[in-house]
Amino acid sequence: MPLPRRLLAEFIGTAVLLATVVGSGIMGVALSGGNDAIALLANAAATAGVLYVLISVLGPISGAHFNPAVTVAMRLRGSLGTTEAFAYVVVQVVAAVAGVVLAHAMFDLPLLQPGIRVRTGAAQWLSEAVATGGLLLTILLGDRFRPVALPALVASYIFAAYWFTASTSFANPAVTLARALTRTFAGIRPDDAGGFVLAQFAGMIGALVVASLLRERAAAGHDHRT
Amino acid sequence: MPLPRRLLAEFIGTAVLLATVVGSGIMGVALSGGNDAIALLANAAATAGVLYVLISVLGPISGAHFNPAVTVAMRLRGSLGTTEAFAYVVVQVVAAVAGVVLAHAMFDLPLLQPGIRVRTGAAQWLSEAVATGGLLLTILLGDRFRPVALPALVASYIFAAYWFTASTSFANPAVTLARALTRTFAGIRPDDAGGFVLAQFAGMIGALVVASLLRERAAAGHDHRT
Amino acid sequence: MPLPRRLLAEFIGTAVLLATVVGSGIMGVALSGGNDAIALLANAAATAGVLYVLISVLGPISGAHFNPAVTVAMRLRGSLGTTEAFAYVVVQVVAAVAGVVLAHAMFDLPLLQPGIRVRTGAAQWLSEAVATGGLLLTILLGDRFRPVALPALVASYIFAAYWFTASTSFANPAVTLARALTRTFAGIRPDDAGGFVLAQFAGMIGALVVASLLRERAAAGHDHRT
Amino acid sequence: MPLPRRLLAEFIGTAVLLATVVGSGIMGVALSGGNDAIALLANAAATAGVLYVLISVLGPISGAHFNPAVTVAMRLRGSLGTTEAFAYVVVQVVAAVAGVVLAHAMFDLPLLQPGIRVRTGAAQWLSEAVATGGLLLTILLGDRFRPVALPALVASYIFAAYWFTASTSFANPAVTLARALTRTFAGIRPDDAGGFVLAQFAGMIGALVVASLLRERAAAGHDHRT
Repeated sequence: MPLPRRLLAEFIGTAVLLATVVGSGIMGVALSGGNDAIALLANAAATAGVLYVLISVLGPISGAHFNPAVTVAMRLRGSLGTTEAFAYVVVQVVAAVAGVVLAHAMFDLPLLQPGIRVRTGAAQWLSEAVATGGLLLTILLGDRFRPVALPALVASYIFAAYWFTASTSFANPAVTLARALTRTFAGIRPDDAGGFVLAQFAGMIGALVVASLLRERAAAGHDHRT
Repeated sequence: MPLPRRLLAEFIGTAVLLATVVGSGIMGVALSGGNDAIALLANAAATAGVLYVLISVLGPISGAHFNPAVTVAMRLRGSLGTTEAFAYVVVQVVAAVAGVVLAHAMFDLPLLQPGIRVRTGAAQWLSEAVATGGLLLTILLGDRFRPVALPALVASYIFAAYWFTASTSFANPAVTLARALTRTFAGIRPDDAGGFVLAQFAGMIGALVVASLLRERAAAGHDHRT
Repeated sequence: MPLPRRLLAEFIGTAVLLATVVGSGIMGVALSGGNDAIALLANAAATAGVLYVLISVLGPISGAHFNPAVTVAMRLRGSLGTTEAFAYVVVQVVAAVAGVVLAHAMFDLPLLQPGIRVRTGAAQWLSEAVATGGLLLTILLGDRFRPVALPALVASYIFAAYWFTASTSFANPAVTLARALTRTFAGIRPDDAGGFVLAQFAGMIGALVVASLLRERAAAGHDHRT
Repeated sequence: MPLPRRLLAEFIGTAVLLATVVGSGIMGVALSGGNDAIALLANAAATAGVLYVLISVLGPISGAHFNPAVTVAMRLRGSLGTTEAFAYVVVQVVAAVAGVVLAHAMFDLPLLQPGIRVRTGAAQWLSEAVATGGLLLTILLGDRFRPVALPALVASYIFAAYWFTASTSFANPAVTLARALTRTFAGIRPDDAGGFVLAQFAGMIGALVVASLLRERAAAGHDHRT
C-alpha cells in the first residue's frame, strides 16, 4: 500500500478516535448530572466501540497504529522504516489535534482550549506505564495468536484500562498531547502531558521486554495488519 | 432474491430498528429518574444490539440498508438499479413510520405525535454529516475488508456515534423523518428534519470521496450483502 | 444425542437462565438506590451474557431451546417429535421454577413468593407478541444464515427487547410461569401470566408466517443446533 | 511450551486480572457517588473485558487458568501433572497478591490493607459454589464445543455471575485470598475467605460431575488452550 494512502488512513483513524474520546466525554458529562461514573462508562464504551471499527477497517491499510508508542515499538521490531515511522508519528499528532477540534466544533465549543485537569504524580505515571505496557502486550501477543480478533482485543483492553488505572489510561502520546487542548472531561493540563508521555514510552519498553521473555517476537516485517 | 422479498426484509428491518430506537428511549426515560445519560446508554446499547441482529439475519436477503443514504450510495456505486433504489427508499420511509407507531402502541401512547425537540444549527448539522459519513465509511471499508464482521461493525459504530456527536447520530434520512413523529426522548421537531437530511446526504457524499481516495471502491454489483 | 442427556441440558440451561434473570434483578434493585434504569441495564446485560454462554455450550447437546415457544415452533416445523417436544416443555417449566428457587436461595429470600407486579392490558400483550415474534425470527433466520453466530444473535436480541418493549420482553412461557413465583424486580402477578403466554404463542405463529413469506423455512429435521 | 514461560504467563494474567478487579472497583466507587450499581456495572464490564484479552493472548501459552480451581480440575482430568499443577497454584496466589498491590499503588493507597467487608453465611457459600460450578462448566463444555470462543464465553459468564450471585462471584481461590488484602470495594474480610474457598472447590467438584453426566469429558492431555 503506498505511503500517502497509509498516512491518510492513520489520519482518519486518529482523528476519529480523538473526536470520540473527547466528544463522548462532553456528552457524558452534559447528560449525567454530575455522576462521573456514568460519564466514564459512556466514554469508555464509545471509545471501545470506535476502536473496534477503526482497527477493523483501517488496519488492512495502515496497520491502524493511531499511536506513536505503537509506531515506535513497530520500528524497534523492524516492522517499518525510520522515515515511515517518523511520518506516521507526525500525522498521528496532527490528526489527534484535528480530532479534538472536530469534537469541539460538533458540540459548539471554542475550538482550542488548554486543559485544566491536573494529572500528575507517581501514581498517575505508574498508571500510564501499566496502561501502555498492557496495550502493547495485547497488540504483540494478539497479533501472534489471534490476529483476526485484534480489533476486539484492543477495544476490550482499552475499555478495561479506562477503569483499572487511576489515569483512565491515555496510553498514547498523540492522544495525550491533543487532550491537553481541551478543557472538557477528557482533558489534561498541558504541564502534565510530558510526564504522561515519558511514562507511556517506559511502559512500551517494558512490554517489549516481557514479550521477548515470552518469546513472542514476531519476525521483522510484520506489524498488526490483518 | 426477488424484489418483493427484499422489500419485505427492508420493511421489517427498518420498522424494528425504529421501534427499538423510539421504544428504548421511552423505557430509558421512564426508568432513569431524569438521568438522561443512563437513558442514552440504554438507548444506544439497545439500538446497537438490534442492528447487529437485523443486519446479520436480513443482510443476506436485502443487503440490510434500512437507510436511504446507504441505498443512494449503493445506487451511485452501481450496486443496484434506479427502480430498485427508489422502491427501497419508499419502503424504508413507510417502515420507519410504522416502527414509530408500533413503539407508541407498545407503550400505550398516542400513535402519532409531532416531535418537539429542537435540533438545529451548524453544530448539529456538522454532527449529522460526520455521523453519516462515518457510517458510510464503516460500511464501504467493512464490506471490503471484513464482510463477515459488518453487522458488529455497524452496531459498534452507531453505539459510539450516539455519544461522540452532539446530535446523537440519526445518520439516516428515513429515521429522521420518522423520529419527527414522536414527542418522546428520540424525537425531533418536524421543522428541523430537513436540515438533518441535507447534512446526512452531504456526509454520505464525503464518505464516497474519502473511500475513493483510499481506493476502496468495490466493483459495481457488490453491496454489503454477506 | 440420547433424550435424557438433552433433557439434562435443557434443565441446566433453563434453570441458570432463570436464576440469572431473577438474581440479577434482585442485585440490581439492591444496589441501584431506586434507579430502575440501572437495575434494568444490569438485568438485561447479565441475561444477555448468560444466554450467549448457555446457547454456545448447551446448543450442541439439546438445541438450547429453554423456551416452550421455541420448542413448539420446532415441532411445527418438524424438527423434533411430539413426545420429545412434550418432554422438553415439561422439563423447561420445572427447571424455570428451580432456577427461581435457586436465585431466592442465593439471596437468602423465601424460596417461593407469588409475584405482585401487575403486567396486563393490550399494550403489554402487544409487547409480548412482538418480543416473542422477534425472538423466533432471530432464531429461524439466524439458524439459516449465521448459525455460528446464533448465541450472540439471541443474546443481543434479548438485550434490545428488554428495552424496546413495554413488558421488558419475557418472550418465553416457561419464564413467565416461573417469574410468577417471585415478588422481586423480575416478577409478574400470577393472574397476569396467562395473557402473556397467549400473546407469546401468537407472536410465535406470526414469526412462522413471516419466515415463510421470506422463504426461510429450513428443511424438516433441522433445528438451531450448531 | 517450557514451564517457566507458562508460569510467567500465569503470573502476568493473574496479576492483571486482580489489578483490574480491585482497580476498577476503586475507580467505580470513587466516581459513582454512592450508587453501587454503577460501580458494579463498571467493575463487571472491566473484569469481563480484561478476561477476554488475557485468555485470548495468554491461553496459547499457559492455558490461561489464573485460578486454582481450574488448575485442580485440569489436574483431576489428567490435563497436567501434579508438579505443574502445584507450581501453577503457587504462582497464581503470589500473582494475585501482586495484582492487588499494583492496583493500590496505581490509586496511591496503602499497598496492603486487610479487607473488612463481611461475606459469610450459607447464602454466600451457595453463591460461590454456583458461581464456580458454572465457570467450570463454561470452560469444560466451551473447550469441547467452541474452543475459539472460550475467551468470550468466560468473560460473558463472569459478567453475568457478578450480578446473579449474592457474592458477586469471586469463583477463584487465589482471587479470594488476594481480595482479603484490600479494604476497597472488591475486598473480603480475611476470616471469611476460608468459607469461600471451600465453597468454590465444592462447586468445582459439582461441575465435574455434571460434565460427566453430559459425557463431556475431554480426553486426558487437553486443557482449554486454543
